[in-house]
Amino acid sequence: MNTFSYERLYQFTHAVFLKMGCSLQDATTAATVLISADLRGIDSHGVARLSGYLRLWEAGRINSKPNIRVVHETPSTAVVDGDAGLGLVVAPFAMQIAIDKAKNVGTGWVSVKNSNHFGIAGIHAMMALKEDMIGIAMTNASALVAPTFSNERMLGTNPIAVAIPANEQPAFVADFATTTAANGKLEILQRKNADMPLGWAQDKEGNSSIDANVLRKQGALLPLGSDREHGSHKGYAMSSIVDIFSAVLSGASYGPWAPPFPAYIPMPENQPGQGLGHFFGAMRIDAFRPAEEFKSHMDNWIERFRHATPSAGNEKVLIPGDPEREMEAIRIKEGVPLVEQVEKDLHDIAEKFKIKL
Amino acid sequence: MNTFSYERLYQFTHAVFLKMGCSLQDATTAATVLISADLRGIDSHGVARLSGYLRLWEAGRINSKPNIRVVHETPSTAVVDGDAGLGLVVAPFAMQIAIDKAKNVGTGWVSVKNSNHFGIAGIHAMMALKEDMIGIAMTNASALVAPTFSNERMLGTNPIAVAIPANEQPAFVADFATTTAANGKLEILQRKNADMPLGWAQDKEGNSSIDANVLRKQGALLPLGSDREHGSHKGYAMSSIVDIFSAVLSGASYGPWAPPFPAYIPMPENQPGQGLGHFFGAMRIDAFRPAEEFKSHMDNWIERFRHATPSAGNEKVLIPGDPEREMEAIRIKEGVPLVEQVEKDLHDIAEKFKIKL
Repeated sequence: MNTFSYERLYQFTHAVFLKMGCSLQDATTAATVLISADLRGIDSHGVARLSGYLRLWEAGRINSKPNIRVVHETPSTAVVDGDAGLGLVVAPFAMQIAIDKAKNVGTGWVSVKNSNHFGIAGIHAMMALKEDMIGIAMTNASALVAPTFSNERMLGTNPIAVAIPANEQPAFVADFATTTAANGKLEILQRKNADMPLGWAQDKEGNSSIDANVLRKQGALLPLGSDREHGSHKGYAMSSIVDIFSAVLSGASYGPWAPPFPAYIPMPENQPGQGLGHFFGAMRIDAFRPAEEFKSHMDNWIERFRHATPSAGNEKVLIPGDPEREMEAIRIKEGVPLVEQVEKDLHDIAEKFKIKL
Repeated sequence: MNTFSYERLYQFTHAVFLKMGCSLQDATTAATVLISADLRGIDSHGVARLSGYLRLWEAGRINSKPNIRVVHETPSTAVVDGDAGLGLVVAPFAMQIAIDKAKNVGTGWVSVKNSNHFGIAGIHAMMALKEDMIGIAMTNASALVAPTFSNERMLGTNPIAVAIPANEQPAFVADFATTTAANGKLEILQRKNADMPLGWAQDKEGNSSIDANVLRKQGALLPLGSDREHGSHKGYAMSSIVDIFSAVLSGASYGPWAPPFPAYIPMPENQPGQGLGHFFGAMRIDAFRPAEEFKSHMDNWIERFRHATPSAGNEKVLIPGDPEREMEAIRIKEGVPLVEQVEKDLHDIAEKFKIKL
């Protein structure tokens, strides 16, 4: 595995988005959002996806010059039409509206239609932190997940991110798929030819499987909880809520109709809406209590949880966001290691556009 | 097991709340909320808890004549001080404020401090349905749950409820604890002297246990996901978010400081806030898109999911809220069966207050 500096990956990605026809501003936003995933260690959502975005653009499913706009609003809400733009650009636009509305009336809530994959949810939620707000981001995604009692893929990995500011402690940043395991974890096992733990995915009959390639054999990922006895109906409910807030509320395509990320998979027929959907929220802390007071209690919350007694064999209790923040500190210094296939993809893109990696 | 009619349980519960000193209006609200749990089949949260509320009142931890009031607000937010009142009464008060704010500015969000156990979360979220709004309700609770990598009880079962209106289909109503299994499920196994599935709770060292009595032996419930490999860090994050929205945002006591429900357990020392905390949200559908349009898409969503292919050995896919609604239809006709211990508790209460069960 070769390692690439942040600067190098950023410049390259920025150049690729410009070649796709993005404006300078959009290319900057898209590259920043995309590479934040590599920095934070969510390798499945960073430059590894650049070739995927490119193919969606080539297939005419991503519009690189979108007219992103508010199509409906109230003092605390808005619906944004992403005009088939890059989710990497549509999402920060929509999150900014949520923040602006929170400045005016305490909170802001924005549902988005006609968008595409938006990178990692956490980076959008984190936009709220510097404003002393709580940020929330979620999105629906291509159907890979079977509801409890089903063997049909009906939902995406539908992540939820919540970012909460503290004072002296780093912010609390939760960012998780509503499945037991993210698809990226299966991909790592596939590359190693390794088995998968039971409870991550099921085969086409609906039996839990250890075959990491089971998704290519009509299998499905399992909602958080894995099976009914361990609460998979709760993961299914959460994933459904993300789908409804993101897509039914906005007018995007929901459930099994969500547009697939791989451009070679045809769009499901009879689309009930437009594109992918997202949902963003911003809550001004001082709409509830003085921000300094809240943040000092968050420090107390974080310190108390960080010092909870570790169980046998474990070193310490983590706060949501700890692993990603620590990874970012390392990678900003030492660079981002890329697996061979991803590096090859980037070289292919470089050649296609005659730009330097 | 004897069966009691809804009317009989309601009249009795109403009389008990009056004896505790509640106003006529508060007794009506409290009885209605409490018995909704029995009707919907959440037996652990209905009349089974009446003696517990009573002991909290006797211990001076529940104020039956509270001055529940808004202590801070913006157009879309409020903080409510429950004045140590019954959560069963404080919660509908706060949810109504969220609904009223949503009428004005599109959404309303209310964080509550100085409250007590509020019954089932779902019934509060469902208040929004008749207004063509999405309702959200959550609460923190006594610490019984260990974060991932810990053997210390730091969080409650911290439930989340989301109610979403449809048109011809019944509403989508998710209402779930953020643990793998609710405490009530352990109690059922305890009464049967049966083992517990692995993954529900851990012993005092932090090893997954099949002893249904493990909570009495310094064990802890596990967050949804059960262990790190199956995503327990996601259940831990969700439960933390509920704790922070409900208690840090409002000024209630959070994490391991949350007041214990059993009155005989002393309050944790150095309380960082007042009482339990809740969080409520209401989002007006037409703050996003026309309500009829949304509800007809919800019908489509629900029908599509209800007809997803069942996996081997399963009959059909359920929509969140289906089991509780079906149970309510049965119990309103046939009555509520009570286990012996609960019936005995009610008889003891009847005797104490000289009222008829």
